[in-house]
Amino acid sequence: MTSGTWVLGVDSGGSGLRVALGALPRGSGSGSGSGSDAGGGGGVRAVGSVALAEPVRTGAGGIDARQLLGRLVPAAEGLLRRAGAGRLAAVAVGAAGMATLGDELRATLPQALRRSLGVPRLALAADAVTAYAGALGQRPGAVVAAGTGLIALGTDLRGWSRADGWGHLLGDCGSGAWIGRAGLEAALRAHDGRPGGSEPLLARVRAVFGPPAALPGLLYPRADRPAVLASFAPEVARCATEGDTVAAGVLARAARHIAEAAAAVCPRGEDREVALTGGLFRTGEPLLSPLRAALAEHLPYARVVTAAGDPLDGSLAVAAALATGTLRLPREPGMLEATTLQPTTRI
Amino acid sequence: MTSGTWVLGVDSGGSGLRVALGALPRGSGSGSGSGSDAGGGGGVRAVGSVALAEPVRTGAGGIDARQLLGRLVPAAEGLLRRAGAGRLAAVAVGAAGMATLGDELRATLPQALRRSLGVPRLALAADAVTAYAGALGQRPGAVVAAGTGLIALGTDLRGWSRADGWGHLLGDCGSGAWIGRAGLEAALRAHDGRPGGSEPLLARVRAVFGPPAALPGLLYPRADRPAVLASFAPEVARCATEGDTVAAGVLARAARHIAEAAAAVCPRGEDREVALTGGLFRTGEPLLSPLRAALAEHLPYARVVTAAGDPLDGSLAVAAALATGTLRLPREPGMLEATTLQPTTRI
Repeated sequence: MTSGTWVLGVDSGGSGLRVALGALPRGSGSGSGSGSDAGGGGGVRAVGSVALAEPVRTGAGGIDARQLLGRLVPAAEGLLRRAGAGRLAAVAVGAAGMATLGDELRATLPQALRRSLGVPRLALAADAVTAYAGALGQRPGAVVAAGTGLIALGTDLRGWSRADGWGHLLGDCGSGAWIGRAGLEAALRAHDGRPGGSEPLLARVRAVFGPPAALPGLLYPRADRPAVLASFAPEVARCATEGDTVAAGVLARAARHIAEAAAAVCPRGEDREVALTGGLFRTGEPLLSPLRAALAEHLPYARVVTAAGDPLDGSLAVAAALATGTLRLPREPGMLEATTLQPTTRI
Repeated sequence: MTSGTWVLGVDSGGSGLRVALGALPRGSGSGSGSGSDAGGGGGVRAVGSVALAEPVRTGAGGIDARQLLGRLVPAAEGLLRRAGAGRLAAVAVGAAGMATLGDELRATLPQALRRSLGVPRLALAADAVTAYAGALGQRPGAVVAAGTGLIALGTDLRGWSRADGWGHLLGDCGSGAWIGRAGLEAALRAHDGRPGGSEPLLARVRAVFGPPAALPGLLYPRADRPAVLASFAPEVARCATEGDTVAAGVLARAARHIAEAAAAVCPRGEDREVALTGGLFRTGEPLLSPLRAALAEHLPYARVVTAAGDPLDGSLAVAAALATGTLRLPREPGMLEATTLQPTTRI
């Protein structure tokens, strides 16, 4: 058995369940992870990971703890076996909906993971928190996590500030679903002869979805309406690149919304860092160019940095910090909760 | 049995099924309804009506023709019996979703109504067409029908023009759902500390829905999300009345969208009429005042008139025009279709 400290990071969300095993360098311990861990991993190194595409089900009691455990424990055992690893020192689970749908996880996971894997320390985190930890580690600043949805999270290491993340009907302003929806509306305005329409976007609607009259029937019966809307966002970027001013205007408004959310949560102070993470920021220059301008306007005191890692990296980093007694990200119900239990004999 | 000409109007939509029996004055016939029928009813007088609150189900084949018939025929028989009326000369059915969900109705209703009620003439119309006929009769112009959703329909009596009506994710700009959604977004912007927020609207969210954090859980699992959004529109009007500039801004933008939709469909020409119909226009002055200004700007050549009646009145008017050979509203697939069948002996 290889010696050292072993930790597990978990990322559970709409695109499935991912589990990573991490190794901490020998001698890692209280305080040793601070200062130099620019990536936020506390020096943790991922030695293996498992990705399961099917999302963990949400039932009446919220995220289904039993189903999550039924997948997580065998995955962890496999990773530990393949790495020749010893007992886990800590596990961090980042999950979408932790604040509102995490009751079953909170009630079940600490005891269940102690029994099954002998884990003494467990962190439960909102997926926005693991996105933050993956992007900025344990440094104060702001992270915007954006894909189909959008949320901004900031911390001064005393507490968390959140902006948006309200979903596609109440907000997620500037997200993939927001951009796609605005693009579709502009296409249909052109179809109707209303002002604010875009013929190039209408042409893309016909190419992607077929006759505009069929679009409502393709969208409304779907359960994944936000994803359908977001699927049109790359078409908006494409039309903007090709010179359509309406599409460019949609992206400029999205950029302003993103910068507003970042500014609402970023702690004041010199040389703050803001990181952007998630699939939306792979949209490219049609979005990034107005976004840089908007961030410079709304957050003149902050520096935009590249996200060091993704939410799974963030989960590993939280587990590593928990294992070494160096967790500095603020604990707050629904955001980041950590429990320590005496290890028992494995059953 | 009372002599005269009897017609039936039907209005089927999200709020249920309504059936009205109408009587035409003696001597009504080809041409006699033209000219003076300002209300569009062709002189038809409603002698009784039935309202069934449960909406007709939509199945794989679209609007369930069998369920509609199962309710419509007994309701019609009851109305005819109570009025001591003779055989129906025509029936008009206005239904939400006729264009995309009306295949079963088109295939089934003409023969079924001939067999069951001996009806020789049947009109099938989109609910927007019966809303038009109820509001403006058979005169050229434009009608905006708005409640939870919003659609504008115009005609020069040669064809129909439609604008918006795309539903709450793709358009319905300026509708109840649109206003409510914009109001909720403004409330949550205030909650987050993002620009464009409204503290008065946030206070109304707390009063109506409870803690803002619970709002996504109250909205997204619901099947009637547009209605939930629209339920907040009166709160936006209330805050605007009390001086909130953000709420007033939402209503001003809604007014512009409504005027844009009306202008997109209104035929050019002198002294055109535009009518507003539906629950949204009972919102009162906070909406109507900017709407009058927007209509004057976007449709300077049109006169805003009071809607003479509702979609059920419109359905009766279409049936009356069909019975008397005076139907002037344009026939167009999915919008207004009329069939004539030789009456057979009732089975």
